[in-house]
Amino acid sequence: MIVTISREFGSGGRELGKRLADTLRIPCYDHELIEEVARQHGMSISEVESISEQDIRICYPKTIGNRFSLVRRVNSDAVDVASCMQGVIRRLASSGDCVIVGRCADVILKDRNPFCIFVYADDSSRLQRCRKRAPKGEDFSDSELRRRIRQIDQERAAYRALFTEAGWGEKESYHLCINTSGREIKTLVPALAAYVRLWYMQ
Amino acid sequence: MIVTISREFGSGGRELGKRLADTLRIPCYDHELIEEVARQHGMSISEVESISEQDIRICYPKTIGNRFSLVRRVNSDAVDVASCMQGVIRRLASSGDCVIVGRCADVILKDRNPFCIFVYADDSSRLQRCRKRAPKGEDFSDSELRRRIRQIDQERAAYRALFTEAGWGEKESYHLCINTSGREIKTLVPALAAYVRLWYMQ
Repeated sequence: MIVTISREFGSGGRELGKRLADTLRIPCYDHELIEEVARQHGMSISEVESISEQDIRICYPKTIGNRFSLVRRVNSDAVDVASCMQGVIRRLASSGDCVIVGRCADVILKDRNPFCIFVYADDSSRLQRCRKRAPKGEDFSDSELRRRIRQIDQERAAYRALFTEAGWGEKESYHLCINTSGREIKTLVPALAAYVRLWYMQ
Repeated sequence: MIVTISREFGSGGRELGKRLADTLRIPCYDHELIEEVARQHGMSISEVESISEQDIRICYPKTIGNRFSLVRRVNSDAVDVASCMQGVIRRLASSGDCVIVGRCADVILKDRNPFCIFVYADDSSRLQRCRKRAPKGEDFSDSELRRRIRQIDQERAAYRALFTEAGWGEKESYHLCINTSGREIKTLVPALAAYVRLWYMQ
């Protein structure tokens, strides 16, 4: 039983992954992945975080002469970290049932047929969730927060583009897409756990 | 408990709706909607079917002078039928728990907070499902069948555009999107029924 969670920023996907794993009584790997990569790479956690979240960029179509061309500029440290992360994910998944949050685990583990979930929500729910869990003293305006949400989603999409042509958040890539708008995550988990259990019993 | 099913053609959404309703022990309205509209309108079932499936068209952006404009050409019989269908759906939903397949019931019943599902599948699963349930003697090539699938999906999207700006199949419009690729519908239903029951218990 391998469940992967991809998620829009502020949709509650991380909480959903954690609670789902607790209900299924299997481990959830989320920040643990970063910690393991840092350990293997001899980097600090914050270095790995900043690399995996910020240093991968894709430049969308660019004109060269008369032709359009997709140009990718990718930081090589970021590729090293992504590659190490891939190894960590493969190793953890082969050691037993688990839930993995983010980091393109759905694509990396494709050959193991994971159950792939995408978690999303409407704008106002995402804003509200971000405000609720913001560190003390953070005081973004709504438009700043919206920009930040968009930016993180773009970074996730760019990270995904390292591994697959299939777009981030395109429902065709997932087995189940869950809208968390206006819902407390904990109210969704028992039903989702039932769904996952029955999926694996077939 | 009102569950609406929107679905790509060939994704098994109709079967899923029927089986889900059976499991939840509530009625499923699908072809019954057409029959009721025909009765109320004094038309034959095939007349209503041909109108609701074929006579609504949207012409996408068209240039008028220097301006782009969205031009809609809508057959007025189709609007009558759609309007009558809307009344039928409202009446059935107010008479008790049910599953409703298609006909934009999710939008029409928005004020009753239905649980909205979108059912989709990859190309090859849809082709295979269409072949399996094709009437005897139907012998489309793969490319003809693909064209037919695309056409029906476009008609559904056009029908939806009569009721809402929110696009057909855009995950944001639904609570749950279910990928049926490579799965027998009946294997998904117990889990989905558990999900719906728990959703309504919260």
